[in-house]
Amino acid sequence: MSQVNYQAIFSEIIAELQHADNLGEVASYIPELAHVDANKLGIHLTTLDNSHFSAGDAQEKFSIQSISKVLSLTLAFSLLGSKLWSRVGVEPSGSAFNSLVQLEYERGIPRNPFINAGAIVVCDVLISLLQDPKKELLAFIRKVAGSDEIHYNERVAVSEILSGHRNYALIHLMRDFGNIHNDVEDVLDLYFYLCSIEMSCSELSGAFTFLASNGINRLGGDMIVSPSKAKRINTIMQLCGFYDEAGEFSFRVGLPGKSGVGGGIVAVHPGKYSIAVWSPKLNKKGNSYLGMKVLEMLTSKTESSIF
Amino acid sequence: MSQVNYQAIFSEIIAELQHADNLGEVASYIPELAHVDANKLGIHLTTLDNSHFSAGDAQEKFSIQSISKVLSLTLAFSLLGSKLWSRVGVEPSGSAFNSLVQLEYERGIPRNPFINAGAIVVCDVLISLLQDPKKELLAFIRKVAGSDEIHYNERVAVSEILSGHRNYALIHLMRDFGNIHNDVEDVLDLYFYLCSIEMSCSELSGAFTFLASNGINRLGGDMIVSPSKAKRINTIMQLCGFYDEAGEFSFRVGLPGKSGVGGGIVAVHPGKYSIAVWSPKLNKKGNSYLGMKVLEMLTSKTESSIF
Amino acid sequence: MSQVNYQAIFSEIIAELQHADNLGEVASYIPELAHVDANKLGIHLTTLDNSHFSAGDAQEKFSIQSISKVLSLTLAFSLLGSKLWSRVGVEPSGSAFNSLVQLEYERGIPRNPFINAGAIVVCDVLISLLQDPKKELLAFIRKVAGSDEIHYNERVAVSEILSGHRNYALIHLMRDFGNIHNDVEDVLDLYFYLCSIEMSCSELSGAFTFLASNGINRLGGDMIVSPSKAKRINTIMQLCGFYDEAGEFSFRVGLPGKSGVGGGIVAVHPGKYSIAVWSPKLNKKGNSYLGMKVLEMLTSKTESSIF
Amino acid sequence: MSQVNYQAIFSEIIAELQHADNLGEVASYIPELAHVDANKLGIHLTTLDNSHFSAGDAQEKFSIQSISKVLSLTLAFSLLGSKLWSRVGVEPSGSAFNSLVQLEYERGIPRNPFINAGAIVVCDVLISLLQDPKKELLAFIRKVAGSDEIHYNERVAVSEILSGHRNYALIHLMRDFGNIHNDVEDVLDLYFYLCSIEMSCSELSGAFTFLASNGINRLGGDMIVSPSKAKRINTIMQLCGFYDEAGEFSFRVGLPGKSGVGGGIVAVHPGKYSIAVWSPKLNKKGNSYLGMKVLEMLTSKTESSIF
Repeated sequence: MSQVNYQAIFSEIIAELQHADNLGEVASYIPELAHVDANKLGIHLTTLDNSHFSAGDAQEKFSIQSISKVLSLTLAFSLLGSKLWSRVGVEPSGSAFNSLVQLEYERGIPRNPFINAGAIVVCDVLISLLQDPKKELLAFIRKVAGSDEIHYNERVAVSEILSGHRNYALIHLMRDFGNIHNDVEDVLDLYFYLCSIEMSCSELSGAFTFLASNGINRLGGDMIVSPSKAKRINTIMQLCGFYDEAGEFSFRVGLPGKSGVGGGIVAVHPGKYSIAVWSPKLNKKGNSYLGMKVLEMLTSKTESSIF
Repeated sequence: MSQVNYQAIFSEIIAELQHADNLGEVASYIPELAHVDANKLGIHLTTLDNSHFSAGDAQEKFSIQSISKVLSLTLAFSLLGSKLWSRVGVEPSGSAFNSLVQLEYERGIPRNPFINAGAIVVCDVLISLLQDPKKELLAFIRKVAGSDEIHYNERVAVSEILSGHRNYALIHLMRDFGNIHNDVEDVLDLYFYLCSIEMSCSELSGAFTFLASNGINRLGGDMIVSPSKAKRINTIMQLCGFYDEAGEFSFRVGLPGKSGVGGGIVAVHPGKYSIAVWSPKLNKKGNSYLGMKVLEMLTSKTESSIF
Repeated sequence: MSQVNYQAIFSEIIAELQHADNLGEVASYIPELAHVDANKLGIHLTTLDNSHFSAGDAQEKFSIQSISKVLSLTLAFSLLGSKLWSRVGVEPSGSAFNSLVQLEYERGIPRNPFINAGAIVVCDVLISLLQDPKKELLAFIRKVAGSDEIHYNERVAVSEILSGHRNYALIHLMRDFGNIHNDVEDVLDLYFYLCSIEMSCSELSGAFTFLASNGINRLGGDMIVSPSKAKRINTIMQLCGFYDEAGEFSFRVGLPGKSGVGGGIVAVHPGKYSIAVWSPKLNKKGNSYLGMKVLEMLTSKTESSIF
Repeated sequence: MSQVNYQAIFSEIIAELQHADNLGEVASYIPELAHVDANKLGIHLTTLDNSHFSAGDAQEKFSIQSISKVLSLTLAFSLLGSKLWSRVGVEPSGSAFNSLVQLEYERGIPRNPFINAGAIVVCDVLISLLQDPKKELLAFIRKVAGSDEIHYNERVAVSEILSGHRNYALIHLMRDFGNIHNDVEDVLDLYFYLCSIEMSCSELSGAFTFLASNGINRLGGDMIVSPSKAKRINTIMQLCGFYDEAGEFSFRVGLPGKSGVGGGIVAVHPGKYSIAVWSPKLNKKGNSYLGMKVLEMLTSKTESSIF
């Protein structure tokens, strides 16, 4: 399975990128993100037979931001099963512009678990189901990643809370429709901590292999979720993982994936590998400019799109 | 000016209403409003030469709710002047359905001071300008009404806070756009207390005479606001005072006015009188069913519309 | 009633305007409007005792555009009565931005007869009721104005048809909801011809006196509409006559009125007079910049606002 | 490649469906669709080595409706290349509710080529590029399908024209934004004829094999589109092919596909096969109830999803 020489491909990609532009802007809405070195670039790929291929700053931790929403979804889905879909949809959301009106029109049910409103509902579900949600969610992520060195970044979380007015608007609107069952502050606290998690490309790539292998954790062989649930999560990533650029990413990369405003992208090739890339500059849609480029080069060179 | 025999007209109206339906529903979103006697009916008219005409339960206090937004607007406008219009508009808002999307499209500037978002911004302005906003706002209302027996109803305010999720959504969205300058909880606290004020028709009618007399308080002769400001407030009432029924009220009654979900309506005939009516059952648009009818009968019988 | 020396006031206004800016832009979406002399200024006031006061280019014809919607509404309302309100509302519409979504949300019923969708429905009503709608509508307008020298401008109408894509979108959406009963092309033909009518300030002022006198035509003493209907039309003008600037016009001028993108404005003081002003430059909301100024100066100098 | 015994699997599926509900409603907005026998069921699968597997009414023609939008897109994309994406997007659209407001907000650029507005723009492109669009488009479809027995159904097309008010609204709105370059009637004529095409499951399955084989027509070996373009079309089908149910279809079936209100569904497994299913009853989202079930059973039994 790992006959492809990913290491050589990564070298080619890195070489070609020497001459490429690195366009876009680093996220600046909180100081902790704004101060990141814009020139960082990390790549890490993990195959299902546990081979590892790495390039650049692959061991350096960064703020994974919305990528973590895949992991909170995984935990909530594994605990609640398909009942989850009465609280949050699985369809793409259209443009960000519509977020509030769509939420109002659809009576407080967010379109999918990756838009902010949907990820907030997932946090609400976790608070209802867990004894110590913040601790247990982190423990779950550590288990999936096979690393105890994963932490919340409290300063990031607090910054997000202080600037998170729109998320407050969303949660109160959902509360008005009865789709938030717990204290608003508790739910947003978990949500902002979730977004503050820091991982390296190496850790992220490892953590996402279960989605490439029918839900099985490569490390211990545990089943994180059933094959059917893993497939569901992959389809949601494919359709909703890139804000308003799902079509563009699907075309250029052709794999289910999820991005974050910290500049990270994770993608999964079912049956083959998972990969994480990190480069902080974001295009206008909020996705890592070089991250998308790297993944596009990889799937072109390996002809490994799912389409 | 008081040659019209309003007392005789009120007797006629009361007699005719014996045979009329009293349709609609009492507001029930908080228990304090739901428990009001649906059959209450009060009318009080004050002329500019300080003659008083009264019928029914005109001395009984009730929750004036949104009517109080005229008084908070008056205070903020008198303190801040036309700078206020950079924070809130003076145009009708169209349907309630659009409230959130309109607020988003217009980047956090509410269309007028009587929709919830606009009244919340007015409270934010008052908090910025006053030392002890809750106390000073009440003192202002007492001065305008010429009565020290006007109070907040704390139980109503607390109930509103507990069920006010949509107002929380609105204020956080405006905060995101930078149009809320103070602590969200402080602003909503003032807003909900404002809405909890209780007054009788007699007190309300007296309090609003300044809008019929170019801004002059009938009692002490003080100028509450300039003639130009009084005219501005009247035009806002005319265009925005009745939720999604401004056109209907303008046609049937033909006076600037403001209603509240407690079943009260105040209307002003510039140069002539102010009048308050109270009947708790609301039509589908949220305005007092009998209140509108009484005012329509009055302006028909006296041929006193401004149109 | 005509004790006010309007002629002297007009002289004052004209003198003061020598030093005033004439800001804004002439409408340019069709060539016929774009080529108008931007410096034209006409004023004409007609009192209920048939006194006339005039200044500037008051006898020169111009494209009255949307002002004509008041006259088509008057005819449809006089023929159909209050059944008309099942086809079109009487409430302000909020911002233009919402026009299509509001029409969709409210299932094809326009908010009022002065937004384009509403005026189109009024034309549909006229086509259902009249034998030769274009001819009979013009005859009605001539009768109301007391002049046979009023005509459609065919070149304007044709230009409007060619550029009227958005109106086509509106009418087809309403057709989808069943609120257009006649052939789409026939209805829009009448609509665009209606908008192409040319009148002078003198003619317009005369034509609108019936709205200042309870529906009675000053000329022959005929009743054009009942007093109640005249009041209804005035309230619709007050709330909906100035696109997204109804509140601003109500405050600055304080009279029911209607503007057109040709630079004309008509306003009515019930019981006193009707007035027409024409100056082609439009402010950002699409209303005549100087026209609003002239009317504001007039009502300030005469202290004659309805508020 | 055809080692899987699809024929046996189809037999199993047909047997299991004997006991299954056939829920939903046949499309009834035009009589030609309403009169179809609701119990029809056809299945046809074509592998890349040109093996055929068939069940039920697989040779019976039906109205393919929106499925044809994939073929018009293919022709326009092959002629215009990526310039096409300046006229129409490639992203999911969110709910149907937003169609008009989204089109307005995004200034006349439809979100993707499969929503009505987008398919209309594609027809506009074809009219600009072709001499005899209706004839050449049909010729292209016949070539791709390898059959001269494919026709427009004129009665269906005319019925669609007569009831297509909303499509008229869409095209005029896009015209207003300059995104329609040809005569509105000509464009809609092509659009409605396109939707009226009738094909059997057998023909449809054959026509879509080029999308499973990197753009190569299995029959003559011609390249219909480049591999990159085939991949792009597949990703658009994956994200936008099922109205507001793309996520649900992706999860349950896991293949790129496209449905039509005639009850047809086509799906493509890149590198393996294309399949067409037909059953007229539609679920609430407008997709064939049994069609989705058949495809779900097939990909479950063969474990052949792309995810």
